[in-house]
Amino acid sequence: MSLLERLGLSGRRVLILHHDDLGLTHAQNGAYLALGFPTGSVMVPGAWAGGVRGRDLGVHLVLTSEWPAPRMRPLTEGESLKDEAGFFPSSLEALWRRARAEEVERELRAQIEAARRLFTPTHLDTHQGAVLRPDLAEVYLRLAQEYRLPALVPESLEGLGIPKAFLPDLLRLMERAPFPRVRFLDPYGLPPEERLGFYLDLSRLPPGLYHLVHHGALPTPEGRALPDWATREADYFALSHPEVRRVLSEFHPLTWEEVGETL
Amino acid sequence: MSLLERLGLSGRRVLILHHDDLGLTHAQNGAYLALGFPTGSVMVPGAWAGGVRGRDLGVHLVLTSEWPAPRMRPLTEGESLKDEAGFFPSSLEALWRRARAEEVERELRAQIEAARRLFTPTHLDTHQGAVLRPDLAEVYLRLAQEYRLPALVPESLEGLGIPKAFLPDLLRLMERAPFPRVRFLDPYGLPPEERLGFYLDLSRLPPGLYHLVHHGALPTPEGRALPDWATREADYFALSHPEVRRVLSEFHPLTWEEVGETL
Repeated sequence: MSLLERLGLSGRRVLILHHDDLGLTHAQNGAYLALGFPTGSVMVPGAWAGGVRGRDLGVHLVLTSEWPAPRMRPLTEGESLKDEAGFFPSSLEALWRRARAEEVERELRAQIEAARRLFTPTHLDTHQGAVLRPDLAEVYLRLAQEYRLPALVPESLEGLGIPKAFLPDLLRLMERAPFPRVRFLDPYGLPPEERLGFYLDLSRLPPGLYHLVHHGALPTPEGRALPDWATREADYFALSHPEVRRVLSEFHPLTWEEVGETL
Repeated sequence: MSLLERLGLSGRRVLILHHDDLGLTHAQNGAYLALGFPTGSVMVPGAWAGGVRGRDLGVHLVLTSEWPAPRMRPLTEGESLKDEAGFFPSSLEALWRRARAEEVERELRAQIEAARRLFTPTHLDTHQGAVLRPDLAEVYLRLAQEYRLPALVPESLEGLGIPKAFLPDLLRLMERAPFPRVRFLDPYGLPPEERLGFYLDLSRLPPGLYHLVHHGALPTPEGRALPDWATREADYFALSHPEVRRVLSEFHPLTWEEVGETL
């Protein structure tokens, strides 16, 4: 039985609307509060991780830190997880070239344990898809099962920019994983001026289980210090728009907490 | 010979105007840029440590993290340096009860080494006076000598709220330290409405070497998320005031870089 069948939602359009990168900045946390949707995930190494309160929060597992500031450091001392100033590597390529799986496992475990001291996590996902290297994906899925937290697993790996060499092993791991596969939507890479149209077009989607990732952030000086502030504000403004709210109301809203209860 | 004699400044009023807590928030870094004074020190575990650029920056050694958010974590894994969520202890009392000197030394060394990858430090000081426990003060002064960085040492320990039991050992360490003793001024605890008066009254000070600490931060939503934002903004506004600027211009301005060159 599929997840939607178990939930009695077959043939429906079901949406997990997911706020990424909570805990990174005050602007990101502020947008979560202002928008009022329950679901998102927290970067435990982020400075503002202690300041997130909400109903359906997961652990946004971090292994990279891509901007000059703010930057994040690992909770553990694994040499393969940091650059010379002690920050996480600034790119997936740098991470995947050096990261040792056993040091990744220690770090992800530390992030999950620390998260459990701050809130009650409902799920796992990962920043920038850092765990897509197959041996790291194995760690990710194993920890999710150990901690009894559903992990985000996309329905398809196409269009996600994943190195081709990773695909056979990843597909095998995903087939075996005891988690629902979701249709992954993420407007992050679209130009900000197309954002409202993206959200309004959701009304054309066929039935299915969708996981829509957004990066909403408040328009503040701190928020605008991130190089990608424009795409974050575009999500925030679009999701504040009454017409987008009407489109979203056509979907059955689902939380990761509800997903976890079915497992 | 005293420092002022070596500098040819005997009988003058000499001021190091020092911006504390850089790297902690975007608002704190923004005030440093806006005010334009050269001297301050950077919290290396702070999220914005990578975003500070300036002429006379030291390492603001961190062993405590006192607000619910933003919070800071150690760079090293010493168990005695963190609470159960992995953050630095939230108070000096909690730190001093548990901290093992060898774990403090590893952590402070890691902060200095990481700082050297981000900028060229000119001096050391410490957040909340965390190194005032005498065995930690010994580490602080020893690392300063090893890294050839002058360390902030106050002329007097009175009025700093230091536990009496620490005083005899601290005084012995300070007498032996090869660093100039400065007259420590810090309006942090004054009510914000008395801040302008505090700075204007500097014009009455007698000759001497003064180290004036301020915590200026921009008036932004992120800056105001700190419980003590009002005292930070009060410093920022007072130091932006033309009459305060005139009072400051009566002093000979000194940098830690210049202090270091005399040692």
